[in-house]
Amino acid sequence: MAKSLKGSYQQLMERSKRLTVLKTAAGIIQWDMETKMPPKGVEQRSEQLSLLDLIAHREIVDPEIGALLDSIEKDRKYESLDELQKRNVHLYRKMYNEEAKLPDELVAATSKQATICVNVWKRAKAAKDFNMFRPELAKMIELREKAADIMMEVKGTKTPYDALLDAFEPGITADKISDIFGGMRKGLMGVMKKIEASGVKPDSELLTRRVKIDAQRKIGQMAMDFVKYDTTSKEAGGRLDETEHPFSTGYFDDVRITTHYHEDRWTSSLFSVLHESGHALYEQDIDQDWKWQPVGNACSYGIHESQSRFVENIVGRSPEFLEFMLPQLRKVCGPALKGVRLDRFVTAVNQVEASKIRIEADEVTYGLHIIIRFEIERDLFAGKVKVNELPQVWNEKYDKYLGVEIENDSEGVMQDTHWAGGSFGYFPSYALGNIYGGMFLRKMEKDVPEWREEVRKGNYVPVGTWLKDNVHSKGNMYDPADLVKHVTGKNVEIEPFIAYLKGKMGKIYGF
Amino acid sequence: MAKSLKGSYQQLMERSKRLTVLKTAAGIIQWDMETKMPPKGVEQRSEQLSLLDLIAHREIVDPEIGALLDSIEKDRKYESLDELQKRNVHLYRKMYNEEAKLPDELVAATSKQATICVNVWKRAKAAKDFNMFRPELAKMIELREKAADIMMEVKGTKTPYDALLDAFEPGITADKISDIFGGMRKGLMGVMKKIEASGVKPDSELLTRRVKIDAQRKIGQMAMDFVKYDTTSKEAGGRLDETEHPFSTGYFDDVRITTHYHEDRWTSSLFSVLHESGHALYEQDIDQDWKWQPVGNACSYGIHESQSRFVENIVGRSPEFLEFMLPQLRKVCGPALKGVRLDRFVTAVNQVEASKIRIEADEVTYGLHIIIRFEIERDLFAGKVKVNELPQVWNEKYDKYLGVEIENDSEGVMQDTHWAGGSFGYFPSYALGNIYGGMFLRKMEKDVPEWREEVRKGNYVPVGTWLKDNVHSKGNMYDPADLVKHVTGKNVEIEPFIAYLKGKMGKIYGF
Repeated sequence: MAKSLKGSYQQLMERSKRLTVLKTAAGIIQWDMETKMPPKGVEQRSEQLSLLDLIAHREIVDPEIGALLDSIEKDRKYESLDELQKRNVHLYRKMYNEEAKLPDELVAATSKQATICVNVWKRAKAAKDFNMFRPELAKMIELREKAADIMMEVKGTKTPYDALLDAFEPGITADKISDIFGGMRKGLMGVMKKIEASGVKPDSELLTRRVKIDAQRKIGQMAMDFVKYDTTSKEAGGRLDETEHPFSTGYFDDVRITTHYHEDRWTSSLFSVLHESGHALYEQDIDQDWKWQPVGNACSYGIHESQSRFVENIVGRSPEFLEFMLPQLRKVCGPALKGVRLDRFVTAVNQVEASKIRIEADEVTYGLHIIIRFEIERDLFAGKVKVNELPQVWNEKYDKYLGVEIENDSEGVMQDTHWAGGSFGYFPSYALGNIYGGMFLRKMEKDVPEWREEVRKGNYVPVGTWLKDNVHSKGNMYDPADLVKHVTGKNVEIEPFIAYLKGKMGKIYGF
Repeated sequence: MAKSLKGSYQQLMERSKRLTVLKTAAGIIQWDMETKMPPKGVEQRSEQLSLLDLIAHREIVDPEIGALLDSIEKDRKYESLDELQKRNVHLYRKMYNEEAKLPDELVAATSKQATICVNVWKRAKAAKDFNMFRPELAKMIELREKAADIMMEVKGTKTPYDALLDAFEPGITADKISDIFGGMRKGLMGVMKKIEASGVKPDSELLTRRVKIDAQRKIGQMAMDFVKYDTTSKEAGGRLDETEHPFSTGYFDDVRITTHYHEDRWTSSLFSVLHESGHALYEQDIDQDWKWQPVGNACSYGIHESQSRFVENIVGRSPEFLEFMLPQLRKVCGPALKGVRLDRFVTAVNQVEASKIRIEADEVTYGLHIIIRFEIERDLFAGKVKVNELPQVWNEKYDKYLGVEIENDSEGVMQDTHWAGGSFGYFPSYALGNIYGGMFLRKMEKDVPEWREEVRKGNYVPVGTWLKDNVHSKGNMYDPADLVKHVTGKNVEIEPFIAYLKGKMGKIYGF
C-alpha cells in the first residue's frame, strides 16, 4: 500500500531531525577541538569527527530517503503541500542528490585530511614555512577537486569551481561573482582614492595603546549586552570563549562565539565580539517552529556574513554607536582613551588603509582581499595555478590590488585557515555579505528611519527587530538572491554598499 | 567461503574502534553538558546524547557482530589466538550477549525514567520529601528488576542483584561482598574505637579558614604537577574545569577532570584534584597499543576507584606528602596556614568522625556508609525490603553502624543520586576500591620500600611508575579479582587495608 503524502513528509522531517541532531553533536565536538581540547587529543578527535561525518553522510544518502523523496514528489497531491513544506522537500532533495553522489571514502578522507591539514597549517604558519604546509594542502585540493568534479555533474554547473561556490551561496556562479566583483572593485577603488586625496590621517596610534585583557572582557560583555546576545543569564543560549581566531557555531538554543584579546589592539576584540554576535543572533532568531527542519537553517554563508558585518560595521563602526559606547569605554579602558574625543575615535576605528591581513582589513579594502582569493581559487580549480605557485601568485596580486609587499607566507598565502580546512569557494561569501548588507541597510533606512538615533541612545532593539523579522526568522525559506529580492525588491546590486561607504567615509574623511 | 580467523578478528577490532570512537564522542558531549553548555541548550543536548546512545547500541547488537563472534569462537584454529586476542573476543562477546538480550523498549524506558527520576530526586531532596520521590524510585527499581532478571539468565548469576553487581565489578557476587564487608566492618569499627579512645581531637577549624579561589587554583596546579597529570604543556592530554560535583572523563590522550572550589573548605579542592587525577592517570596510562580494543579500557569501577583513592588518600593524605606540600601551601594560602604546624595539619586532614554524608566521610568511616547501601540494595532486590520502608531501614542502619541520627531523608536515603539514576550495584565498588588499594599498597611497599621518602622529597615517580606498570597499563586484561591476584598474588582480602589504616591512624592518634 502506498504511503500517504502526509506520512511520507512526516517521516522525512523525522529523518531531518535525526540528521540535524547528529550534525549539532559534531558541532559541539568541533567547538571543543577549537576551544578546550588538550593538544594531545587531536588524533582521537579526528577519528570522532570523521566517524560522525560518515554517519551523517550515510543518514543523508540512505536509499530510504531517496524513496521518501520520490514518493512525495510524485504524489498526485504534491501540490497540496504548502510553500514551507515544498521548500523542505526541495532542500532535502538537493542535499540528497549532491551527497548521494559523493563516495563514502572521499567524504571520510576529506574530513580526516581537514583535521590533519589544519593542524599542519598552524605549525607551518608559526614557522613561516609554506613548504611544510604545501604537501598537506596539495592533498586537500586534490580531494576537493574530486568532489567538485562530481558535484558539477549533479548540480549541472558550468565548472567544478561553480559547484563549490554553490555549496556556500546556492545559485551563484563564478561569472556572476566576476560581474559583481568587477563593479565592487571599481567602487572600492573610487572610495579609496577619495580617502587618499582627503589628506585626513586617522590617529591609529590610539588603538595600539595597551588595554588589559580584563578590561577587554568587560568591553566584550558590554557589546553582547548591547545586541542582547545572552551568555550570562539562567536562560542563556550563548557563551563566549577565547581562540586564536574568532568564530561562531551552534544551533538555536546553544550558539557560541569566540574572540581573541590583543593587549595592544584592544578594539579588535570589541569588533570581533560584535561580528560573531551578529552570526549568533541569526542562528538564535530563526523561527523556532522550524527547528530540525531544512528550512530551520541560515540561508547561505553570504547572508550569514551580511548579518555579522551589519552588526560589526554598519552598527558597530557607526558614529552613533561609538558615541553611545565612548563614555562606558572610558570607564574601563583607563589611560588608553584619555583625552580622546569622539570624532578622533570614530576616525581611528574607521581608518581605511591597504594592508596585508584580510581579517584586519577595513570596510573599504576588505573586498579587494576577497577578490584576490576568489581569482586564485577560480584559477586553481581551472588548473591555471599550481599549488607550489600559490605564494608567488598571492604576493603578485597583493602588490597589484592593494599595493602591499608580502614579506613571508604567514602574512601571505597562509594567513587564513579556510583552504587548510578544505573550504574552497567560501571567500566570496564574505564580500557578498557586505553587498547584501548594503542592500538591507537601504531598506531598513526606509522602514526604521530613526534607527541611528536609537543606537545613539543605546537602543539596538529597532535594528535587532528589523533584522530578525526580515532576515533571521526567514531561515532557509529562500535562496540568497531570492531572499534579497524578497526583502528589498531588488536583484543583487553593488550600488547600495558603495553608496553607504561613500556616505560614511565622506563624512569622516570630509569628501 | 568461510572467513579466515585473522580476518574475522581484524573485523571485530574495527567494529570495536568504531564503537569506541562513538562512545568517546558522546563522552565529550556529556563533558560539555556538565561544564560549558549554556543552560538553554539542555533539551537539544538530550536529543544528541540519546541519539548517540541509540547508534552505539545498534552498533553493538548488529547481527553481524554476533556472526563475527560465532565465526571466531567456532573456528578450529581459535586456540591459536593469543591471550590478548582471546580476552578481546571474550569482552566483546560478553557485551554483545548482555546488550542484545535487553529489549530496546526496556533500555529506552529505563533511560527515560532515569531522567525523570533524577529530576524528581533533585526536587524531593530540596523539599526533604521522600514521598515525592518514592513513586518514581519504585518505577525505576521495577525497571532495573526486569533488567536484572534478564541479565541473571545471560550471565548465569545466582541472583538478579549479582547480575547488577557484575556490571560494575565483573565476577563479583553479593556473597563474596558480604564476606569481605563483614571483615571490613569489624576492622573499621576496631580502628574507630581506638581513635575515639585516644582522646585526640583534630583541629578541623583550620580547614574552614577562607582561602581564595585563585589560591586554590594554584594549589590544584601543584597537585597536578606533583602526580604529573599534564594540563598545561604543548603535549598535554588533560584539563581541569569547575563543576558542582568533581568528576573525570576521557580516553587515552584526552582525559579531563573537574573540581569544585569551596572558599570555606579549601582542602576539598586539593583532595578532589588528587582523586580525579588518580582516575585520569589510569585512563592515560593504559597500554597505547590497546587503543580502540576492548582490553584498552579500565578493569572495573572498583579498580578505578582504587586508583583515585590511592592518589587522594594513601599518597595525598600521607604525612610525607603533606610535609612536602606544606611550605608551598603556606606561600599561596595566606593567613589560613599561619602558625599551623605539620602535625596539626596532618591530623586535621585525617580527622575520623562518624557522619551522615557519604561523600564527606573519612577513610575509616567511609566503608560503613557503603555497607549500609550494599545491604539495602541486596535486600531490596531480594524482595526483603520495600521501597516505602527505605527511609526507616536507612536510618536504623545509620544509627547501628555509625551511631548518627538522621533527621530528614535529604541527609538520609536521598543523599545520593545513584539510585535515582538506576545505578544499583555501583556503591560496593567504592569500598572495594579502598580494599584493592590496601592490597596494592602492601605489594608496593615491598617493591618500592623508599616510596614514602621519595614522596617526602616531592618525587611521585616511584609511586606513579609502580601504579602504571602494575595496574594502569594492564587495562582490561583481567577481571578485577584476577588483576588483584596477578599483582599481589593474593585473593581479595581486607587485612592490608585495615593494617594500613591502623598504621597511619595509630601514628596520628597515638595508639
